[in-house]
Amino acid sequence: MRETAIGIDIGGTFTKYGLVDIDGNMLMEGSMPTYSHRDIRSFLDALSKEIYAQLDAIDTSFEIKGIGIGAPNGNYYKGTIEHAPNLHWKGIVPFVDLFQEYFDLPMVLTNDANAAAIGEKVFGGAKDMNDFILVTLGTGLGSGFVTRGKLIYGHDGLAGELGHANVYPDGRQCNCGKRGCLETYASASGIKRTVFKLMATNNIESPLRTYTYETLSAKKITEMALGGDPLALEAYDYTSNILGLKLADAAAITSPEAIFLFGGLAKAGDIIVDATAKKFEEYLYPGLKGKIDIRLSELMDKNAAVLGASALVWSEIVQDESIKIPQQARVV
Amino acid sequence: MRETAIGIDIGGTFTKYGLVDIDGNMLMEGSMPTYSHRDIRSFLDALSKEIYAQLDAIDTSFEIKGIGIGAPNGNYYKGTIEHAPNLHWKGIVPFVDLFQEYFDLPMVLTNDANAAAIGEKVFGGAKDMNDFILVTLGTGLGSGFVTRGKLIYGHDGLAGELGHANVYPDGRQCNCGKRGCLETYASASGIKRTVFKLMATNNIESPLRTYTYETLSAKKITEMALGGDPLALEAYDYTSNILGLKLADAAAITSPEAIFLFGGLAKAGDIIVDATAKKFEEYLYPGLKGKIDIRLSELMDKNAAVLGASALVWSEIVQDESIKIPQQARVV
Repeated sequence: MRETAIGIDIGGTFTKYGLVDIDGNMLMEGSMPTYSHRDIRSFLDALSKEIYAQLDAIDTSFEIKGIGIGAPNGNYYKGTIEHAPNLHWKGIVPFVDLFQEYFDLPMVLTNDANAAAIGEKVFGGAKDMNDFILVTLGTGLGSGFVTRGKLIYGHDGLAGELGHANVYPDGRQCNCGKRGCLETYASASGIKRTVFKLMATNNIESPLRTYTYETLSAKKITEMALGGDPLALEAYDYTSNILGLKLADAAAITSPEAIFLFGGLAKAGDIIVDATAKKFEEYLYPGLKGKIDIRLSELMDKNAAVLGASALVWSEIVQDESIKIPQQARVV
Repeated sequence: MRETAIGIDIGGTFTKYGLVDIDGNMLMEGSMPTYSHRDIRSFLDALSKEIYAQLDAIDTSFEIKGIGIGAPNGNYYKGTIEHAPNLHWKGIVPFVDLFQEYFDLPMVLTNDANAAAIGEKVFGGAKDMNDFILVTLGTGLGSGFVTRGKLIYGHDGLAGELGHANVYPDGRQCNCGKRGCLETYASASGIKRTVFKLMATNNIESPLRTYTYETLSAKKITEMALGGDPLALEAYDYTSNILGLKLADAAAITSPEAIFLFGGLAKAGDIIVDATAKKFEEYLYPGLKGKIDIRLSELMDKNAAVLGASALVWSEIVQDESIKIPQQARVV
């Protein structure tokens, strides 16, 4: 009987789910709207109904070891979703407690970037690593830090907020209430702000000048950069410089073997990876120079959010032998 | 029979050692010069001779469980001291391998700030914490990060270099070869540089203007600040602002329960702790506001370096029940 785990990725617009075996094969997958369910009960009713229907349609035999959930502002210790700005469900939602009424299975919940990091460890480029960082460059900037083979959750279950490290204390206004957070520069929304700043401060000609703030997307900027547009390339340079700087700070703290970039902006590939790696190396503590790779996630073209969420079950619940134990001390 | 551990703290000028029981009582302690031993063999001969003589003089019976060593640029995985700028022994010194020839005991070596962090956990204010940061404000700035009850060593055994996070990319020249590192601002040498900068940029009167760069010490600045000197207080404000900012970045990554300040500058007490805590709170990710204490180490007036080094034996070798195991996930 195949051992499997359910992975669920809750996003502001859509929720994706799938049944994944330990080799990363999807036995089923699906997606449903999140935003239309203003009430958490209505959402859970619909989600569980869909999942049960999809499970019934699978014609091989399988055993489900647990459910892993990635969610914005997910609290690992409490199984709650806390004050997520992009979800309708306000305050603290006891997600795992509620979801237990639908599935009598072990469950683990954490934020989406942490789930992606564990996905990288179980199914992606970090299989043989105990110390690495994964950074998601989406609408915002999320991060998952793995040390000794385990995620850093911190004292309250909410660690890994590199997106809210300070770049310029009086800088760009952030949705979090502060100013100058890293994610206001290095993210899909951040690079759009940078394009508008650059249009204001220099005279580089570009078709980007024909877009309004509302019509311009990071995807468009990436397309233009890949096509060689100098303004778009300048925006990527500006972004990579700031990202390289803050990744160097993070690396000085945790000394990772590699830093994986993931998400929309990472689709610019070499344009962002090479420029960020160059700046990173420049800002890095000399004792670490040449030791840390910056590279793309190996799950970029896959249903990584669902893979990552399912991987939480193997990493955080099952703890089987496929999960490497932490390196041992130099004890003689 | 009392269970004990030997703790050794290797500094650029002096090396301190002691025999410590599991309750933090010193059965013996001593100190010898480091700097006069240009050769590592000569140093180890002298150190082991002193320790054996002191152990012979103890009149109670004891069992030694191991030796813990804190050293600048100490590599936990390899038991080596690597390219320490303030020591005579150049390159990579296989300290543990060499020291094994003198003592047939389990040994563990790490950098001095990591040792201090474990000291705080075993004997100080972090006894009940699994997630905290300790920052040493000495000649430089060292840091030890504890998550899930364990130190972060990183992939190469050299993690915890918060002192080399970037404050201003084109800022003050650092001994590490970069510019603008945190320790060029928030440390004993950093605050002296700040006093000289402030004397250049404003007209505040102060007896500090009668000192040369070579005669002024951080200790003097602290004394003046405690006495209410406005220039010294301004220097502490400037330092606290930068320290608060970078601690907020670090806290966003690891979400500690508390941050402990230790070392020379921390002797300014409330002057540095309150100002740093205020700025820290201002720069902190809103999801963490009000959750993280900044406080003085509880080992400030003790032989903390030796206590910390000995604590490595309990934490990293013996792993007895007095060391709390990591918090469990919210797995239902």
